[in-house]
Amino acid sequence: MTVPQIAPELAVSRWFNSAAPLTLSSLRGRPVLIHAFQMLCPACVAHGTPQAEKAHRMFRETDLQVIGLHTVFEHHAAMTPVALEAFISEYGLTMPIGVDEAASDSRMPVTMARFAMQGTPTAILIGRDGQVQYHGFGKEDDMALGARIARALG
Amino acid sequence: MTVPQIAPELAVSRWFNSAAPLTLSSLRGRPVLIHAFQMLCPACVAHGTPQAEKAHRMFRETDLQVIGLHTVFEHHAAMTPVALEAFISEYGLTMPIGVDEAASDSRMPVTMARFAMQGTPTAILIGRDGQVQYHGFGKEDDMALGARIARALG
Amino acid sequence: MTVPQIAPELAVSRWFNSAAPLTLSSLRGRPVLIHAFQMLCPACVAHGTPQAEKAHRMFRETDLQVIGLHTVFEHHAAMTPVALEAFISEYGLTMPIGVDEAASDSRMPVTMARFAMQGTPTAILIGRDGQVQYHGFGKEDDMALGARIARALG
Amino acid sequence: MTVPQIAPELAVSRWFNSAAPLTLSSLRGRPVLIHAFQMLCPACVAHGTPQAEKAHRMFRETDLQVIGLHTVFEHHAAMTPVALEAFISEYGLTMPIGVDEAASDSRMPVTMARFAMQGTPTAILIGRDGQVQYHGFGKEDDMALGARIARALG
Repeated sequence: MTVPQIAPELAVSRWFNSAAPLTLSSLRGRPVLIHAFQMLCPACVAHGTPQAEKAHRMFRETDLQVIGLHTVFEHHAAMTPVALEAFISEYGLTMPIGVDEAASDSRMPVTMARFAMQGTPTAILIGRDGQVQYHGFGKEDDMALGARIARALG
Repeated sequence: MTVPQIAPELAVSRWFNSAAPLTLSSLRGRPVLIHAFQMLCPACVAHGTPQAEKAHRMFRETDLQVIGLHTVFEHHAAMTPVALEAFISEYGLTMPIGVDEAASDSRMPVTMARFAMQGTPTAILIGRDGQVQYHGFGKEDDMALGARIARALG
Repeated sequence: MTVPQIAPELAVSRWFNSAAPLTLSSLRGRPVLIHAFQMLCPACVAHGTPQAEKAHRMFRETDLQVIGLHTVFEHHAAMTPVALEAFISEYGLTMPIGVDEAASDSRMPVTMARFAMQGTPTAILIGRDGQVQYHGFGKEDDMALGARIARALG
Repeated sequence: MTVPQIAPELAVSRWFNSAAPLTLSSLRGRPVLIHAFQMLCPACVAHGTPQAEKAHRMFRETDLQVIGLHTVFEHHAAMTPVALEAFISEYGLTMPIGVDEAASDSRMPVTMARFAMQGTPTAILIGRDGQVQYHGFGKEDDMALGARIARALG
């Protein structure tokens, strides 16, 4: 069970697919789905990232905000913003994607640590009230995720 | 767009996986998902029927009622109740499954005609008020179906 | 390891997709791939039977003979020739398919017993010399099967 | 149809998963499967690269040599050897993989140009005599590839 808690703020060093930076405080009142991934994480590439992109497109008519978060905690020299940009282009991703801010004293980036994520892929669903409704590590079932999003929207 | 309408009643000649016959009138107040299929319909076997079974299991804690409906409109001699019983056993299906009542004057069975279904697989979602909320023919996306069910439950 | 042995003869009560009955003795000199299946066996429907049909089409230019064999050893009342005919039609199968002859004293049909098959799906590859080169029960990998067929042809 | 021709030599700037550099001239007498890929090419990651790795493992007992070739012709700043090393680790690749040598005057690397490859993924099968037996661009079917390899080995 997830203990309800106010989601901490994002710390993002660069945005792709977004004209302006996104913050959870400015998104308060809307449900937010955060998909944390790494571009060289096989389960992200095969499942989690296309799933988040699908949600972004499927719920376009609603006020759900889907955010991809590139939470690099290993192979830092390989998964640079330049590499991420190529990845986003090759995989045709259109959802806003932020680069989780590197920490000065840890391999784990700042937002990943604030949310106490266990790895990638991670899905975090935040309600209109800013509380974390769901925090899951690993493969999410499409049907279950669709139901969670609809409940957050309803 | 689906025009809201009160769902017609089921006409079922035999039930599997249900101690007693199910009727939509007695289920009024609960959301109902009907999965119409034929055991020799490739898209049903590969996708629709496992999807309905997954919904049956995933929403077990809710008051959603999932109903499989064997709507035989072709190959009647092949898709008998005896054959269906073997199919249910081999595929490990646990949701209630009704055999749509054969019509005396048509290849299309009674419930299938009442709902004006176009073929199999068909998914029909009925709200707590007995109105048809969704009627789809063909492959349903898992995420979209999960969201529809959650909205019907909410 | 498969001990090389001359394949026993087929016993088939009815053929589909073949103008005349096929016998292994008349096919001597050509490689033969036998795919034993049941139309209500989930692993056959999802994998083995489409794989055999693919081999039938892929090696059409060679003298490989692919034979589907409906080896019903359970749910006999459900998997009748009438039902098989509908199955063949619905799944668009074009390879020759024989109904393994029912045994008078056993649930297991005659050819299945002669080959000592363990269940369905089973793949049996017979060389030009009539010897069994491979006998496998369960899911066959496409790449491995392609290689086996090419070796039998070479 | 592929016109038989002697395969040109590889030009590789760095090897992974190989104690020593591999050359086609020293491999003469053995069949060689070259899988040309880019680590950010979706069809490579989803299909071609795992397929080549599977062939590498499946034919381990034979004298087939599988070679992965990282033919970067776009997003050069993203697909560096450092990034490739992380990719190889994350995807658990064990086949020898060479980095196609960058050309001084072209975005297309040297080996890719010598073989006149059209893009990634590309599969090239070289016979024991050093001649190109097959050159295919795009998705290869597992069964067809297994058969091609077996013919090259036979």
